[in-house]
Amino acid sequence: MTPNAKASMGTAVPKDLDQWLRQQDQRLHDDLFEFLRIPSVSARSEHNADMKRAAAWLHGHLERIGFTTRTIETPGHPVVLAEWRKAPAGAPTVLVYGHYDVQPPEPLELWTSPAFEPTLRGGNIYARGSVDDKGQLWLHVAALEAHLAVRGTLPVNVVVLAEGEEEVGSEHLAPFIEARRGELACDAVVISDSTMFAPGIPSILSSLRGLAYLQVDVTGPNSDLHSGMYGGAVVNPAAALARIVASLHHDDGRVAIPGFYDAVLDFPAPVRAGMKALPFDEAEFKRHLGVDTLGGEPGFTTLEKLWTRPTCEVNGMLSGYTGEGAKTVLPGKAMVKVSCRLVPDQDPKEVARALERHVRAAAPPGVTVQVTELHGGRPWRADLEGPLYDAAARALGAAFGRAPVITGEGGSIPVVNDFARILGAPVLLVGFGLPGENAHAPDEWISQENFRLGMRAIATLWDELAAAGT
Amino acid sequence: MTPNAKASMGTAVPKDLDQWLRQQDQRLHDDLFEFLRIPSVSARSEHNADMKRAAAWLHGHLERIGFTTRTIETPGHPVVLAEWRKAPAGAPTVLVYGHYDVQPPEPLELWTSPAFEPTLRGGNIYARGSVDDKGQLWLHVAALEAHLAVRGTLPVNVVVLAEGEEEVGSEHLAPFIEARRGELACDAVVISDSTMFAPGIPSILSSLRGLAYLQVDVTGPNSDLHSGMYGGAVVNPAAALARIVASLHHDDGRVAIPGFYDAVLDFPAPVRAGMKALPFDEAEFKRHLGVDTLGGEPGFTTLEKLWTRPTCEVNGMLSGYTGEGAKTVLPGKAMVKVSCRLVPDQDPKEVARALERHVRAAAPPGVTVQVTELHGGRPWRADLEGPLYDAAARALGAAFGRAPVITGEGGSIPVVNDFARILGAPVLLVGFGLPGENAHAPDEWISQENFRLGMRAIATLWDELAAAGT
Repeated sequence: MTPNAKASMGTAVPKDLDQWLRQQDQRLHDDLFEFLRIPSVSARSEHNADMKRAAAWLHGHLERIGFTTRTIETPGHPVVLAEWRKAPAGAPTVLVYGHYDVQPPEPLELWTSPAFEPTLRGGNIYARGSVDDKGQLWLHVAALEAHLAVRGTLPVNVVVLAEGEEEVGSEHLAPFIEARRGELACDAVVISDSTMFAPGIPSILSSLRGLAYLQVDVTGPNSDLHSGMYGGAVVNPAAALARIVASLHHDDGRVAIPGFYDAVLDFPAPVRAGMKALPFDEAEFKRHLGVDTLGGEPGFTTLEKLWTRPTCEVNGMLSGYTGEGAKTVLPGKAMVKVSCRLVPDQDPKEVARALERHVRAAAPPGVTVQVTELHGGRPWRADLEGPLYDAAARALGAAFGRAPVITGEGGSIPVVNDFARILGAPVLLVGFGLPGENAHAPDEWISQENFRLGMRAIATLWDELAAAGT
Repeated sequence: MTPNAKASMGTAVPKDLDQWLRQQDQRLHDDLFEFLRIPSVSARSEHNADMKRAAAWLHGHLERIGFTTRTIETPGHPVVLAEWRKAPAGAPTVLVYGHYDVQPPEPLELWTSPAFEPTLRGGNIYARGSVDDKGQLWLHVAALEAHLAVRGTLPVNVVVLAEGEEEVGSEHLAPFIEARRGELACDAVVISDSTMFAPGIPSILSSLRGLAYLQVDVTGPNSDLHSGMYGGAVVNPAAALARIVASLHHDDGRVAIPGFYDAVLDFPAPVRAGMKALPFDEAEFKRHLGVDTLGGEPGFTTLEKLWTRPTCEVNGMLSGYTGEGAKTVLPGKAMVKVSCRLVPDQDPKEVARALERHVRAAAPPGVTVQVTELHGGRPWRADLEGPLYDAAARALGAAFGRAPVITGEGGSIPVVNDFARILGAPVLLVGFGLPGENAHAPDEWISQENFRLGMRAIATLWDELAAAGT
């Protein structure tokens, strides 16, 4: 079931919290700006001291508002872990995840205002990290402070986990969660690190695709040959590779790997209906990409293709001479990187095996094929049932004045799988960014209105979650 | 008609010339070694003075043996042009072509003896340029000297044209011939810059393949995209390119470009029969290449595929991410370099047009295709009729004690087409190198026996040519 649109309309943002947030608005902006001024670029070791400063700043603030806070070292950047566990007996425990590290700001010359000097312009807050993810982490902290400041308590137990390595692959997060699975046990994980479908349309991100990424190396003769002296008698590895790659899809765009779709589950009819109802502008999508025709699997809308269907894409291809002009070489080898995006219940290992079998069967005699698995990740999909999603729908409805839509995401966010898998708790992905927010580009921004409504939605969420139980 | 085997058996190397060549053997070796010691590497400007030295050395020698010699500047390295035109009225005029420049010797550490210190070892002369082409040019000069020294005259008029840019593309040769077409007019062109089929088997190289070389650029979206966020809805240019490339051949290996074979002439039955009779070791060929299966067009032997049939080969292919590991990119573009080797009477321009038409028809909607012609060259085939080839067969038979075989070459030697086209004279390609001679590699060598027999064959050729007329 998708969150019921009607269910979300009876709820309002609690007046006491709304009033406090209005009173504190300037100060909450000032604090966020202070947080954003710290250039916590996790990818650059020259910013290691800034990373420590950002962690310490967050640590200090969480402690001041009443959280028991630790800054825990990892082999990389530290995790800030803050707990408040004084909710009434039987109240659910929620883990809020965010990250305090940001992308490098370069190229600096393309920023309208400095990357680390937050600037309000046209209703948006511009700064590196404004939306990804300091601003979205901060609106959670503000919502928590609202409860504690106004009521002296929270209706749920809360653990805030803020990591400093999201932008460099979260390498140390899964082991961290694994090692503290008891301590981090919770009834729900809430993450705000994504976008809304469009302005004014609150969104719950309900699915992520998985990945099976392989490299195929085709080898023919033991060295590059003169294409005149040998051409016509030797199997050309580049041509063989092209035949293999061409065999991956049927003419109509469907993936031709035997068994590829066997484990694919249809998305629930209401979710598909919801996606179809989204105001997606396909003409604008094509104009944005600069193409006149879209592709992919027939029988599905573009959003369904991106969010609910598996793919097989070439990521890279290399053989022979690729410089300027003509070189008459018959290449000795050819390489392709191919990756499949997966949907429930496809298994990355099984898809990789099916792809390897297909590639070997498609290779002509005269070449040898080596297949290397480079990366794999499971798909994820929220089942959208239960009190967490209902509470989220009500809270978003209260803040934004309309029911949220359900969106999907064609890419992967590995930490979501890590939390779901290790902690066994449902994960709510509720983001307040917007399309065009430049998350990894110059002039990153978050809408000031979304920042304010986000604080209210999250503050409301804790009440709704406590009322519902989990 | 192939040169008649019987025709070659009645002839002997003239005793006077043979005797002189025996007497002068050491001195002819010494002179060649002196020539080989000049590191005339045309590709490296630091050897420009050596190039001048090599030209001057050759110039001096040709003048000493009785030729009117000029060293003529070009925009690149100079041409040495020597003439002897005192043959009896009605005698044919022959143009001997060779080149005095050599390939760079690197990697030096792989040479058993220094590249520019000629060394006799196991019956072979080792040095850069020993076979390609100083040694083969030199055996012509020695044969000319034999006639002039023993008899004071030559039975044919001779023009020797030695260029210094063969190893860097002969860029200035065609314009040179074009500008002096009257002066260079001749009844035959003789070139020794190729190999014999095997030791003891004198060979006439009777065909060269042409070339039509294109680059195909396929463009999809206006930039590389995230394969998760966009994969499955956008036509992947690399996958489209693979389908285009795969469509170039039928499953059985024949080229699938419509009309591709229309202009292809069958090689004459005796030539094909001659090729079939050559002692070609296919198992050794495969072992040398490190493959267990050969490919190409069905219905032809390997030598026929290499020498008499056209091909379509991928020379290079590039798209997306080709570095180490996994990058989830949906490439914005893909590139392939494709070249066809051509046989008579295929026209490079027409094949390029047919290939372009085919590529455009094979491209799926959602991508745009740009085709760029990079290089083209006509195929060449001697008709093997007439006094030149008969004379060559007799001369080679006299020197080697067996009739020559007719071979082909899968690559192109553009100067052959230039001579044939501009001067309208038949071209005789008679080489004295051997398989494994390392022409462009360390430890280049020429067989001392072939050097000696080559001098005798060429000395005999002038007599036979004069006797036959042209």
